[in-house]
Amino acid sequence: MFNLISLKNGIDNVEGFYSDGISAGFKKNNEPDVAFIRSNKECDITAVFTTNKFQAAPIKHYKKYPKNFKTNFILMNSKNANAITGQRGIDDIDFIFKNLKGIRLLNPIMSSTGVIGYPLDKEKIITAANKFDYNSKNSKNCSNAIMTTDKFSKELCFRVEFDNGDFFHIAGICKGAGMINPAMATMLCFLVTDANIPKIDMDEILKESVENSFNKISVDGDTSTNDTVFLLASKTKKCYDKTAFKEALKFITKNLSLLILKDGEGSNKVVAFEVNGAISEKEAEISAKALSNSLLVKTALFGEDPNWGRIASTIGASGVTCSEEELEIYYDKVLIFSKKHPVLDKETEQKAMKVMKKESFKITCNLNMGNFSYRAYGCDLSYEYVKINADYRT
Amino acid sequence: MFNLISLKNGIDNVEGFYSDGISAGFKKNNEPDVAFIRSNKECDITAVFTTNKFQAAPIKHYKKYPKNFKTNFILMNSKNANAITGQRGIDDIDFIFKNLKGIRLLNPIMSSTGVIGYPLDKEKIITAANKFDYNSKNSKNCSNAIMTTDKFSKELCFRVEFDNGDFFHIAGICKGAGMINPAMATMLCFLVTDANIPKIDMDEILKESVENSFNKISVDGDTSTNDTVFLLASKTKKCYDKTAFKEALKFITKNLSLLILKDGEGSNKVVAFEVNGAISEKEAEISAKALSNSLLVKTALFGEDPNWGRIASTIGASGVTCSEEELEIYYDKVLIFSKKHPVLDKETEQKAMKVMKKESFKITCNLNMGNFSYRAYGCDLSYEYVKINADYRT
Repeated sequence: MFNLISLKNGIDNVEGFYSDGISAGFKKNNEPDVAFIRSNKECDITAVFTTNKFQAAPIKHYKKYPKNFKTNFILMNSKNANAITGQRGIDDIDFIFKNLKGIRLLNPIMSSTGVIGYPLDKEKIITAANKFDYNSKNSKNCSNAIMTTDKFSKELCFRVEFDNGDFFHIAGICKGAGMINPAMATMLCFLVTDANIPKIDMDEILKESVENSFNKISVDGDTSTNDTVFLLASKTKKCYDKTAFKEALKFITKNLSLLILKDGEGSNKVVAFEVNGAISEKEAEISAKALSNSLLVKTALFGEDPNWGRIASTIGASGVTCSEEELEIYYDKVLIFSKKHPVLDKETEQKAMKVMKKESFKITCNLNMGNFSYRAYGCDLSYEYVKINADYRT
Repeated sequence: MFNLISLKNGIDNVEGFYSDGISAGFKKNNEPDVAFIRSNKECDITAVFTTNKFQAAPIKHYKKYPKNFKTNFILMNSKNANAITGQRGIDDIDFIFKNLKGIRLLNPIMSSTGVIGYPLDKEKIITAANKFDYNSKNSKNCSNAIMTTDKFSKELCFRVEFDNGDFFHIAGICKGAGMINPAMATMLCFLVTDANIPKIDMDEILKESVENSFNKISVDGDTSTNDTVFLLASKTKKCYDKTAFKEALKFITKNLSLLILKDGEGSNKVVAFEVNGAISEKEAEISAKALSNSLLVKTALFGEDPNWGRIASTIGASGVTCSEEELEIYYDKVLIFSKKHPVLDKETEQKAMKVMKKESFKITCNLNMGNFSYRAYGCDLSYEYVKINADYRT
């Protein structure tokens, strides 16, 4: 038995980890735009990266390290993704690390987010980083520094406590508000733990957790060049339990991913799309993700219109095995469409409209063709999304 | 040798075809919402339908007829798609045809567009249709009647004229402004010809033409339950030539599909996305369609921002074989990205911005990996799109 206890101040709680953020002048008003996370021990690290074929320079730089390398340092910047910058992008990262002072670096890692295609301003990053106090515990600054179009910073920490009094911590910060897609959301996420977790478990549990969290959310169906989830383990604590760690990591990644969706560019609602009764897990996933990505569904969510015809049409367009005679559609618990039990009355529509006014609700489609289910998460599409993305670089 | 001569008044030019539209009271201000196309001869007909698994009742009704059936009549309505209405939807169509007066019907066909999931108002349609003068040649009214969110009606007609003076006609009307996707655009299109074309050629040429026109455009990546392209041949003329017919049908369907894109909900620009140098035709198609469907690309078009990083990122996310060392991106003739020939200067960006202000232009991506090309067509995504689709049913 174990308990998950939510703690404030994110990464600061995790033994042996330090972090901070600072302004290098990329953002206005001296807001932080360069940040670090470091550990006073050599850490095992595992990572999941974007499926985009054009992986950004920081990802290529990471991949140059040997298998199972250890690290003690991640440097982050926002406003520039250092993507599609070729060999120069990788060389720039090495140059930056060569010029950092006051810190002993072991296989340092960089992580960037922002505009694609422009070289990093190395000097500004170096100048800013050399002002860091590497003994800071200030993860709030760190999570602020990686924000781009995010409206709020995203940080969670849990103490995993056992009946015998043993405990370890897992904490994570992430960013992301647009370019969010089920095929590995465009986002950065940094997870750290002091648990005494073997590297092999880190690999397995991170992969599984990402599949069940960041890969289930969609803001706009786009997949960036920089998507990254890192998990670092300092093993400062003696304590570890695989079941507990897995549950805690799933919980923290799921909730971080929902924070990203809540902060979806211009979005006002977080909606779960659950498909049940599919003939295979793949078909359940395809149809649920089709719903979370459909522009017509997303605009109907914004309009708070229980236009279930668009839900049905999107299921049909996704190509999965289905039949209109068997289909049932619910908005939360309101059955709005069923061929067997017709419910096309004004009262039901009123009830569904009420559901749609909520900040978060579930749309369930029972295909009644098989036994497989999948739940994807999406948000509405507003004028604001268009505005943010029409003006992004200006 | 043959000439394509553009004619006004669409279907009215084609021998043996009659059409009109009338108000049944579904639209405001007595605008037409019910229409017909009929022929005074038995016509061969061929059709391409939506790939959506929930095909609308009119499509199911059509499919009940035996192979190679002949017809003389199509009835259309807007405001109600008669989709996901089960057996009742099909029965309603039979009921309507049983109650039409003043016309001898041979295997009549219905075609509907509008909201999904509600039963047709049969009586209103019958009452309106029974006011038709079936000898009208008024295809303008007909093309107006099938409009939904369309801002303008879409009609084209060509005389295909040979050196020896022989000629035949091809005309088409279509509707569609949203729910437009490469996998058979959500739209209705009615093509008629008086050419003496064999049924086998009709099937082959229509399929090929749809692949090269309606299946290459995207407004929002959604595929409706009602998509249909019909081709009717009255064979009133003795004249026919396969090469000429194929070229003419390709030309008319291509231009009708571009009219749909021009009328894309809330769209201001028509953009061709050409991918060259892919390792297969399929990969060329996948990446070109990924561009035409990307929300981030579409919003950047609206913002007139030559944000080529999003173009590159979308190519990479599409999963096709590519390398940033080989990639080249053009806005019309302006080379804006090339690893081999770096062009990241302000002047180039200014030139690209100028291209983006045009109503129609081309974005070309040379992958330089192979020999295959594909051109897809898309449009920008504006506030207006969100507004139209948030409020569609109200």
